Amino acid sequence: MAAWARAVRGLLLDVSGVLYDSGGDGGVPIAGSVEAVRRIKASGLKLQFCTNETQATREGFVKKLQGMGFDISVAEVTAPAPAACRILKERSLRPHLLVHNDLVPEFAEIDKTNPNCVVIGDAAENFTYANLNEAFRVLIAMEKPVLISLGKGRYYKETDGLKLDVGAYMKALEYACDAQAEVVGKPAKMFFESALAEMGVPPQQAIMIGDDIVNDVGGAQRCGMRALQVRTGKYRPCDENHPHVKPDAYVNNLAEAVDIILQQL
Amino acid sequence: MAAWARAVRGLLLDVSGVLYDSGGDGGVPIAGSVEAVRRIKASGLKLQFCTNETQATREGFVKKLQGMGFDISVAEVTAPAPAACRILKERSLRPHLLVHNDLVPEFAEIDKTNPNCVVIGDAAENFTYANLNEAFRVLIAMEKPVLISLGKGRYYKETDGLKLDVGAYMKALEYACDAQAEVVGKPAKMFFESALAEMGVPPQQAIMIGDDIVNDVGGAQRCGMRALQVRTGKYRPCDENHPHVKPDAYVNNLAEAVDIILQQL
Repeated sequence: MAAWARAVRGLLLDVSGVLYDSGGDGGVPIAGSVEAVRRIKASGLKLQFCTNETQATREGFVKKLQGMGFDISVAEVTAPAPAACRILKERSLRPHLLVHNDLVPEFAEIDKTNPNCVVIGDAAENFTYANLNEAFRVLIAMEKPVLISLGKGRYYKETDGLKLDVGAYMKALEYACDAQAEVVGKPAKMFFESALAEMGVPPQQAIMIGDDIVNDVGGAQRCGMRALQVRTGKYRPCDENHPHVKPDAYVNNLAEAVDIILQQL
Repeated sequence: MAAWARAVRGLLLDVSGVLYDSGGDGGVPIAGSVEAVRRIKASGLKLQFCTNETQATREGFVKKLQGMGFDISVAEVTAPAPAACRILKERSLRPHLLVHNDLVPEFAEIDKTNPNCVVIGDAAENFTYANLNEAFRVLIAMEKPVLISLGKGRYYKETDGLKLDVGAYMKALEYACDAQAEVVGKPAKMFFESALAEMGVPPQQAIMIGDDIVNDVGGAQRCGMRALQVRTGKYRPCDENHPHVKPDAYVNNLAEAVDIILQQL
């Protein structure tokens, strides 16, 4: 019946809004998600978690999820910071970092002396006037400014209200330097491709499951994957009328998606 | 000889970089500029100062210039904040302000309760993470966000280094809200037109003199004015190869421009 679920060999799961809702003391699991992850693993399907989280190291992030009961390990997580580190090494780039304090350890092995690029993440309280001016000065001093942005989200919600996300500050620096950032993270094609490579599954045999119509669903589909939108997390009913992106299916939550997928195996 | 100087009846002068250089204790007059302003006034030419300054009220700004010896009064200054106030009144807009503390008095007579728009200026130290999130929340709560920006400069130089200007923060909010700001100040056509209206001179009989190739020269020319670039202030030799904007003439400084113009009268 569910044609979209056929011939699947691997699943890519977004984390925030699919596995858990953030807020309060760090987050609460979405009903059925802990069990759903266990069932995927028991089924023999390949599984990779694909997140744009940049407020913590993968170690810290995984520990938080394990604390909620999820069966997850660091090697199963594709996140922007490690992907950025690979790019920095490949291109001999030495970053000036404008990121959250808790993300800094991800860059421990990267040479940061005499910077020849800027890496910007969701720096939150580190987005000060002084820090933004400093990142700008590093960029404008380059003949061709190199700005690497860990995602390009517009904003997100926390318990004390909406917050500007990294994309807004990326745009500020892009405009000031007359440059274009390289985005690492969803919806960048390379980012999905590296998650698929971790699983060893081609896009045609993989399904992305996320709550973000543009970054999760649209991004994965542009890589040739099928993509589901869950009606949890940041999902809004108006997403179902999105002018450009149409998921292969809607599901109420991760548990329902897993039910359908496992029935087809 | 200087065809561009013929049939002129009014002059629009940019201020920072044309009359004085900022830095140190507020600024130093550019050689010959104090005398040049006096000579313009003695000649019978109409004169208006046209600035994007938004870190002080016009009163404070004029007082600083008078302290340097310039013959200038508040009524002779066209600045973004008073222009924004006219727009706010005309359209019954109640602003949430994200501006420099010293600019706030310009909005004293404007109703700011229950805001239905955001006005952003060069807020400098007021560009904090908390203040940017707050301005964003006001905008995103509107069905159609109204963002009025006092200029759209990329950056400027102070004695302690380069600083991001209002345009960068405008871009951040535009992206986060998926909205387009209305820019008040140079190079907006309406802004030049209001300065011309103050003088009662049509654009064909007016000359703009500024140090900014895009905001002063390009903006004024698009209004049908002639425009000179001075080789003072933020002028850089590479401006003379600008891909889109070509001034009607270059002059070494305001004094030289006034010499040539007065010879044609």
